[in-house]
Amino acid sequence: MAARRIGAIVFDLYGTVVDVGAVAEACRDVAADPAAFTAQWRAKQLEYSFLRTAMGRYRDFWAVSGEALDFTLRRFGVTADRAQRRRLMEAWLQPTPYPDASEALARLAARFPLAILSNGSPRMLRTGLRRAGLASHFRWVLSVDAVKVYKPSPRVYQLAPRALRVPKERILFVSSNSFDVIGAKAFGFRVCWINRAGAPLDALGMAPDAVVKSFAELEATLA
Amino acid sequence: MAARRIGAIVFDLYGTVVDVGAVAEACRDVAADPAAFTAQWRAKQLEYSFLRTAMGRYRDFWAVSGEALDFTLRRFGVTADRAQRRRLMEAWLQPTPYPDASEALARLAARFPLAILSNGSPRMLRTGLRRAGLASHFRWVLSVDAVKVYKPSPRVYQLAPRALRVPKERILFVSSNSFDVIGAKAFGFRVCWINRAGAPLDALGMAPDAVVKSFAELEATLA
Repeated sequence: MAARRIGAIVFDLYGTVVDVGAVAEACRDVAADPAAFTAQWRAKQLEYSFLRTAMGRYRDFWAVSGEALDFTLRRFGVTADRAQRRRLMEAWLQPTPYPDASEALARLAARFPLAILSNGSPRMLRTGLRRAGLASHFRWVLSVDAVKVYKPSPRVYQLAPRALRVPKERILFVSSNSFDVIGAKAFGFRVCWINRAGAPLDALGMAPDAVVKSFAELEATLA
Repeated sequence: MAARRIGAIVFDLYGTVVDVGAVAEACRDVAADPAAFTAQWRAKQLEYSFLRTAMGRYRDFWAVSGEALDFTLRRFGVTADRAQRRRLMEAWLQPTPYPDASEALARLAARFPLAILSNGSPRMLRTGLRRAGLASHFRWVLSVDAVKVYKPSPRVYQLAPRALRVPKERILFVSSNSFDVIGAKAFGFRVCWINRAGAPLDALGMAPDAVVKSFAELEATLA
C-alpha cells in the first residue's frame, strides 16, 4: 500500500486491537467450557447488534452485551448471581491488547493520525482504552452511539471522515472482523484485514486492499 | 388466543412450515458432517441477510444463499463442482413440509385467510410451495424482494397489512425463528412462536403472545 496516500488510520477495537478471547478468562467462573461460552456470547452480541440495526431499535453496546450474556447463560443452563454477572460484564471494561499491538500503535501514531471506530459504547471505549494503556495513541475515539445504528451500516463509517476531516479514500481502515472489513470496503475506505486465524473471507462481493496476520505485517505494508 | 379477533394468519416459511434440516440430505454428497455443514450454511445465509440489510446492499435470497454456500464450502475445505453446487442450491427449491404442517394448514385455510411472508426470493417461494404441495393454502405469498431489505426490518412486516388489507393488530404471525418472532412483535403483530426444539427466546426485550411446540398446538390455541 502506498503509505503517502494515507491521511489517517482508523482501527476497529474488539478482536482487532484488543483480544475478546480474554473475556473467556472471566467466564471460567460460570462455564465448564469457557471458550464455547465466550464464542456464543460474542456471536449473540454481534447478532443482536445486526438485528437491532435492522429493526431500528438501537440500544447501546453495553446493553446489547448484557442481553447477549443473558441469552448465553440460559442457553448453557447456567445461573449467575448479580456479582458473577457484574464480573462477566466488566471483562469488557478490562480488555487485553494483542501482544504486538501496543508498540506498533505507538510507532504508527508517530507517522499518522490514528482513530478508533467501534460498536462499543462511549463508556466502554473510554474505560477500556485507558485500562489497556492505549488511550494516548488515538486522537479520536468514535462510537456508533453517535448515530444509533451498528456496523456495517454506512452511517457508522461516515463518522470517521466527518470527525477526522480526511476524505474516505485517504483513510486506511483496519479490522480483524470480516463483516467489518466488507462494510468498510463497501463504504469506500481503503481496508486492511488483520486475519490472525487465517479464516476465509465472507462471500459478500468485497475484498480488502491488504490482508495481514499481525500488527508487524501491517507496519511492513506501510513501510 | 381469541380466534375471533384474528383476521388473517401470516406464516414464515423456512424452518416454520418447511424443514430446512432437509437441506442436510443434499449436503451428504459433499460434507462428512452434513448437519454441521447445513447449520453453518443456514447461519451464514441469515447473517448475510442481516449484513446486506445493514449495508443497504440487497441481493435476493437465492444469491445470498449461494454466497453463504460458497463461504461454507471454503470454511469446510470442500470443493464442489458445478453439478454438485447446483444440486445443493436446488435443495432450497424442494423443501419438505414438517409432518404436521400440511393437514393443519388445510384446516386453518378453511377458517382464516393465510399468507406466507418470507425472506425467500419470489421464484424460491413459488417453486418451493408448489413442489411441497402447499401452494393452494395461501392466498398471498409475500417476498421481502418487494422492499429489498430482509427481516427483521419493519418494512418487511408492513408488506402483510398492506397486501391483506387487515390491520396489523388483527394479524397473527407465526414463525419458528426467534429473531423473526421478535421482529414481528416489535412491528405490532400478534405473534405465535413454534418452538419445536425448546430453544431459549432471544433476549431482545420482546416476547410472543403464544409459544407452541407444533402445528397441532397452534390449532389448539385457536380453538
